[in-house]
Amino acid sequence: MKQPLRVGIAGLGRLGRRHALNLAHGTRHVQLVAACSPVQAELDFARAELGVNNVTPDFDAFLRNPQTDAVVLVTPTSLHAEQTIAALEAGKHVFVEKPLALNVEDCEKVEAVAARHPRLVAMVGFVRRFDASYQQAHANIAEGGIGKPFLVRSQTCDMNDPSGFFVGYAAHSGGIFMDCSVHDIDLARWMLGKPKAQRAYASGTIAMHPGLAKYQDVDNGLAIVDFEGGARAVFYASRTFAHGHETQTEIIGTAGKLQIGHGAARDRVVTSDAHGVRHAAVSDFFERFGDAFQREMAAFVATCRGEREAPLTLNDATEATRIGLAITRSLRSGMPEPV
Amino acid sequence: MKQPLRVGIAGLGRLGRRHALNLAHGTRHVQLVAACSPVQAELDFARAELGVNNVTPDFDAFLRNPQTDAVVLVTPTSLHAEQTIAALEAGKHVFVEKPLALNVEDCEKVEAVAARHPRLVAMVGFVRRFDASYQQAHANIAEGGIGKPFLVRSQTCDMNDPSGFFVGYAAHSGGIFMDCSVHDIDLARWMLGKPKAQRAYASGTIAMHPGLAKYQDVDNGLAIVDFEGGARAVFYASRTFAHGHETQTEIIGTAGKLQIGHGAARDRVVTSDAHGVRHAAVSDFFERFGDAFQREMAAFVATCRGEREAPLTLNDATEATRIGLAITRSLRSGMPEPV
Amino acid sequence: MKQPLRVGIAGLGRLGRRHALNLAHGTRHVQLVAACSPVQAELDFARAELGVNNVTPDFDAFLRNPQTDAVVLVTPTSLHAEQTIAALEAGKHVFVEKPLALNVEDCEKVEAVAARHPRLVAMVGFVRRFDASYQQAHANIAEGGIGKPFLVRSQTCDMNDPSGFFVGYAAHSGGIFMDCSVHDIDLARWMLGKPKAQRAYASGTIAMHPGLAKYQDVDNGLAIVDFEGGARAVFYASRTFAHGHETQTEIIGTAGKLQIGHGAARDRVVTSDAHGVRHAAVSDFFERFGDAFQREMAAFVATCRGEREAPLTLNDATEATRIGLAITRSLRSGMPEPV
Amino acid sequence: MKQPLRVGIAGLGRLGRRHALNLAHGTRHVQLVAACSPVQAELDFARAELGVNNVTPDFDAFLRNPQTDAVVLVTPTSLHAEQTIAALEAGKHVFVEKPLALNVEDCEKVEAVAARHPRLVAMVGFVRRFDASYQQAHANIAEGGIGKPFLVRSQTCDMNDPSGFFVGYAAHSGGIFMDCSVHDIDLARWMLGKPKAQRAYASGTIAMHPGLAKYQDVDNGLAIVDFEGGARAVFYASRTFAHGHETQTEIIGTAGKLQIGHGAARDRVVTSDAHGVRHAAVSDFFERFGDAFQREMAAFVATCRGEREAPLTLNDATEATRIGLAITRSLRSGMPEPV
Repeated sequence: MKQPLRVGIAGLGRLGRRHALNLAHGTRHVQLVAACSPVQAELDFARAELGVNNVTPDFDAFLRNPQTDAVVLVTPTSLHAEQTIAALEAGKHVFVEKPLALNVEDCEKVEAVAARHPRLVAMVGFVRRFDASYQQAHANIAEGGIGKPFLVRSQTCDMNDPSGFFVGYAAHSGGIFMDCSVHDIDLARWMLGKPKAQRAYASGTIAMHPGLAKYQDVDNGLAIVDFEGGARAVFYASRTFAHGHETQTEIIGTAGKLQIGHGAARDRVVTSDAHGVRHAAVSDFFERFGDAFQREMAAFVATCRGEREAPLTLNDATEATRIGLAITRSLRSGMPEPV
Repeated sequence: MKQPLRVGIAGLGRLGRRHALNLAHGTRHVQLVAACSPVQAELDFARAELGVNNVTPDFDAFLRNPQTDAVVLVTPTSLHAEQTIAALEAGKHVFVEKPLALNVEDCEKVEAVAARHPRLVAMVGFVRRFDASYQQAHANIAEGGIGKPFLVRSQTCDMNDPSGFFVGYAAHSGGIFMDCSVHDIDLARWMLGKPKAQRAYASGTIAMHPGLAKYQDVDNGLAIVDFEGGARAVFYASRTFAHGHETQTEIIGTAGKLQIGHGAARDRVVTSDAHGVRHAAVSDFFERFGDAFQREMAAFVATCRGEREAPLTLNDATEATRIGLAITRSLRSGMPEPV
Repeated sequence: MKQPLRVGIAGLGRLGRRHALNLAHGTRHVQLVAACSPVQAELDFARAELGVNNVTPDFDAFLRNPQTDAVVLVTPTSLHAEQTIAALEAGKHVFVEKPLALNVEDCEKVEAVAARHPRLVAMVGFVRRFDASYQQAHANIAEGGIGKPFLVRSQTCDMNDPSGFFVGYAAHSGGIFMDCSVHDIDLARWMLGKPKAQRAYASGTIAMHPGLAKYQDVDNGLAIVDFEGGARAVFYASRTFAHGHETQTEIIGTAGKLQIGHGAARDRVVTSDAHGVRHAAVSDFFERFGDAFQREMAAFVATCRGEREAPLTLNDATEATRIGLAITRSLRSGMPEPV
Repeated sequence: MKQPLRVGIAGLGRLGRRHALNLAHGTRHVQLVAACSPVQAELDFARAELGVNNVTPDFDAFLRNPQTDAVVLVTPTSLHAEQTIAALEAGKHVFVEKPLALNVEDCEKVEAVAARHPRLVAMVGFVRRFDASYQQAHANIAEGGIGKPFLVRSQTCDMNDPSGFFVGYAAHSGGIFMDCSVHDIDLARWMLGKPKAQRAYASGTIAMHPGLAKYQDVDNGLAIVDFEGGARAVFYASRTFAHGHETQTEIIGTAGKLQIGHGAARDRVVTSDAHGVRHAAVSDFFERFGDAFQREMAAFVATCRGEREAPLTLNDATEATRIGLAITRSLRSGMPEPV
C-alpha cells in the first residue's frame, strides 16, 4: 500500500473536532499527525482523544512541520484566505472551511497563489456536495434525468436558538446569506452546470431576533439570482425554524425535477399517536451531514493522494462568495445588484 | 332525460342518514321519495331535512309503496337477509348494508330469491370498492400493472373509543372479524380475482377492553387465509388505535405491489412544529370513505337504471361471510379451520 | 324549508360546465334555472344535461330574467368587471370567476357599485380558499397553531402542455402571474391576515415555450413580495412541470409551519415497482380542486341565502390584482415595483 | 488510552469482508490483526486491503494465536456453534454471525459453555438492533412512548434475484423463516420485552421459484406467533419483491405505534417525472444496514473492552431459533405448533 497522507489540523472547535475525529478514526489512507490551536484545551483534546503528539499554538510552526503533507484549516473565517495562502506557500495541500473569504479580492488572491502551485490540492468545505443524496441527484442530472435543469430552489433553515447566540456572531458572519446560503449558492451553480450569475435580488425580515437590525442582518432571508442563459435560483435562509434543521434543494428541469432533503427526517421511525402521524427532524447541520463530513475528508485525502480529480475548485468558492455578496448588497439596497 | 330512480330508505341511523343525504342531494338521476323507521325522530328528520313526505314506521307498508323503484336498507344486521328477500319479492331493487347475514345459509337464501328475480338489482354495501383509490388499484391490477397478484395484506383499524361502546355491541356484531374484516376479505377476493378460500387461521388479543372476553371476542385480531392456487391474505383488525382510523390494503404481485391508504392522512396539510413533521389521520370510517359512500349510491342508481353492470354480486357477500365465519371459528378453536 | 336560491349561469366552457353541474346536482338549496352563452352547443348542453329550459345567447335578457336571484359568471376575463356591475345593477347576487379585472381601476369600479348594493353578494372565484386542506390550515393559523405567520411560499405549477395552447392565450391572460399566481397572492394575503403589500420583485425564464417572448411573458416565473409589518411572500408559477399539476403553499410562523398540497398525490395509492416507490400526481387544477369547486358553490349559495358571512370580499380581488400587476411590471422592468 | 482490542476474523466472504473493513478502518479502539479462511484469495485480500499479516487457513491455529483478544466468525452456519464453543474455550471473546445454530440443542450447548466463561463476551449478529432507527424506537418504547406494546408486525423482503441463487441455497438455509425472519423474531422479542413465545402458525406460497418445492420451502411466507401475556407478532418474508429490499417493523401499543423502515428509501432524493413522484428503494440488506454493521462492531469492541454491557445475549439467539423452528414446522404441518 502507498503511504498514508499525513495531515495536520488547525482549529479544534466544534467543526474542527468533527473533521479531526473523522481523520483520526473514520478515514482510510490518512494519519492525523499534528494539531494547532490557540486554545490549550483543544490541544489537550488532540493528545488525549486523537493520539496526536505534535501539537502547537503557533500556526507558523504548524505549517513548517516537515511531517505533514496536508493541512485542514477550521479557523475563524477572517483567517481563511491568508492561512490558505501561507499553507500553499509552505508546500501543503489545503482543505479550508467555507467561506474562503468574505470578499472576492481575497478569494482571487488565493486562486492566484494556488495557480502557481498546480501540484497542490486546495479545496473549500462545501460539505453538501459530499452528501450521498446530493451526489445521486447531481449524477442523475448529468445523465439527463430531468432534461435541461433551469431552476434551483434551495434553503438552509436552522432550528431557532432561543439563546440568540448567532445575533452576536452576526457582526462577523457576513450576514445570513454569506453564512447559510453560500452552500445553496454553490449547489445551485453545481446543479445548473456553473452558469455565470448576472444579478441578484434579496429581501428579508426579522421575525424573532430584533438584535440583528443593528447589523443590517435578518433572521429570514429570500433571494432570486438570474444566471446567463436563462437559469434562475431562489434561496431561502432562516434562523427560526421550530421543528429542526431543514436543508433542502429542488432542481427543476424540462423533463422532471429532483428534491433533496424534503421532510428532514432524522431517521426511519414514524410515530402515530395523539399528535398525529409524525417523524422527528434532524436537529442541526451536524446531524444532517454527518456522513457527508466523513466523505468530504475521504475525498480530500484521495485527491491529495492523486486517486481522483478535485471534486471542486477554488474558483467555485470565489463565485459563491461573489454571488453571496451581491445578494447581501441587495438586501441592504433594496435593489437588484449586478453580480 | 330518462326518469329518475325513485328510492325509499329504511333505517336512518348514522349510516342511514349518510346514504339518505347522498340520495337527496348528492346523486344524479334519483329521487328519495320514502322513508321507514321505527324511530319517530328519524321520520321527522326525513321530512324536515330530506323533504320526504312519504314516511312510515311500517316496513311492509314501506315495501308496498308503489311509488318506489328501489329500497336502501340500513337496518340492524339481523334483519338484512329477510328484508332483502321481502323487498325483492315486492319487486324492488335492493341496496342492503353489509353484512348480508351472519351465517352462510341466510346469504344463500337471499341469493336463491335474487336468482328468481334477475331483473332486479341486489347489492351489498362493500363501500370500499367505490373508493377512488381502491378503484385505481383494481384497474391497475386488471391491466397487469403488478404482474400476478398473490398476496393481500389488509386492515381495518379504528381509533380507540374509551367509552367502549362496541363492547356491549359485541354480543350482536358477530365479532371483530365479521364486523371489521369483512371489508378486507371482500377486497382481498376482489383484488386477487376471486379465488376460492380454502382455510383460515386466526389469533387475537385483548389489549384494552377486557369486557370482550365474555363474548369470545378480541380488540385486536389477526388472520391468515389460504386460497386455491397459492394466493394468501393476512388481515388485521383493531379497535384500539391511538391516532385515528387506519384502513389500508396492500396487494403484492410478481412485478410490483400497490398500497392503498397508508398514512391515513385526513387532508393535504403537513405541520412542522415542536411535535415533529406530522399530519392528522382520518378519525373514522365515515371521514375516510365519505366520497366512496357517495359513489356507491351513484353506482347503485346507475345499475338500477341499466346504465352499468352490477359492481358486485350477492355471492361476493356470501363468500365474504363464509371466510369471515371460518376466521371467527379459528379464533375460538385455535386451529386452522376449513372455509 | 326556505326557498332554494334560483341561479343563472353565463358561460359554459370547461369551468362553467363544472360550476353548472355542481349547481344542478351537487349543491343543496339551489336551483339552476337559466343559462346564457353565445355558443349554441353550450345552450344545448344546458337543456339536455342540466335540465335548464330558460336559455339565451343574450346577456341582457339573461340579467333581466325575473326568475333568478343570482348569477354565476364564467365568461371571458375582459367582460368580468362590466358584467358584474350590470348584474348588481339588475339586482342579482353575483359569483364571478377570477380575475375580477386585469387592472385596478376596473376592480375599484366594481367595488364602488357593490358598495351601493350592500344586500347583494358579490364574490370572486378564489377557489382554493374552499379546499378542505387550505381551510384546515387557515383555521389552525387563526388559533395560533404556528405562532405569528410571517412568510408564505406558494406556487401554481401546471403540467406542460406540449400543444402550447396557453402561448396564444398569453395575449389576453395578463401574463403568468395574473393568470396563475393570483391564487397564490390571495392565499398569502389570507394566511398572513391581509397585510398591505408594499413592493414586488419578479424574475422569470422561458424554459420551453419561446413563443411567449413576444408577449413579454415567461413559462416559469418567480416573485418576492414585501408586506407592511415585515411579512414576506415568494411565489412560483410554472407552465412546464413534467409530472402533473403541483399547487402548494407553505406558511411559516414563529412556532411552526404548515404545508398544503406537497406531493400533489392524485389518490391514496402508492406503487412499488421497477420505477421505485411512487404515486401519481394530480393532472390539473380541476382534478386537484374538484371538491373545492363544489364547496365554493355551496358557500356562494349559503351566503346569498343569508346563512353565513361572505367568505371573501371584492376588495380581496382588488388587492390580488394590485399585487399581481406590480409583480408583472417588475418582470418587465427588472426592478422592484411599488404595489 | 487503554490498549485497543486485538481481533481476528474468520471468513471473508461478502459479509465477512464488510465486518473486516469496518474493523480495519471504521471502528475505534480496535486492531484487526489476524484472518482465517480456507480460500486463498480471501487471505490475499486480508494482506493487501486490510494490512493483516497474520493469515492462515487453519482455524485451530487461528484460535491459538496469542495476539488476539477476540474473534469474529463469519463462517458457514453449520460451523457457528462448534466454532463459538472452541473460541470461548480458547479464551477469546466471540462475535458470531446469525443464526447461532439451526437447532435449539446446539444453541443451548453454546450457552452452557459461555456460562462457564462469564468474563468472555459472546455476541450473535442481530445487526438490526444496531440500526439507529431501531434503537430510537426501542428507547422510545422503553420510555413508555406508545404505552404497553402488544403487537409487532415485521418483515424482511428481498428484491427478487432472477438467477434464483437462493433456491440452491435452500437446502442449507433452514428455510425462509430461519434465514430471513429470524431477525424479525429477535426484534419482536426485543420490542415486546422478551415475553415467552407459546405457539406459532405459518403459511406460505411459491410465487416465482418452483424449485423451492423440493425443499418444502416457499418464496413468500407468513407467520403468527402468540406470546404469553397476550402479545402477538406477525412476520412476513419474501424473496420476490420487485422494487428493492424492504425491511420494516411496526410496534403497536396501547398509546400509539412506531413504524421503522417503511418506504425503504435509498436516500433523500425524490424524483418527479413522467413516472410519478418517486424515490428509489434500498437494493439489499447491505445497503440498508451499512451503518448498523459499523455500529455493531463498535458495540462488540466496547463490550469486550468493558465499556458497556452486552447489547444482547446468547439466549436471545436461542429463543429466536426456537421460535423460527416452530414457525418452520408449522409451515410444513399446516397446524399451529407449540414453541
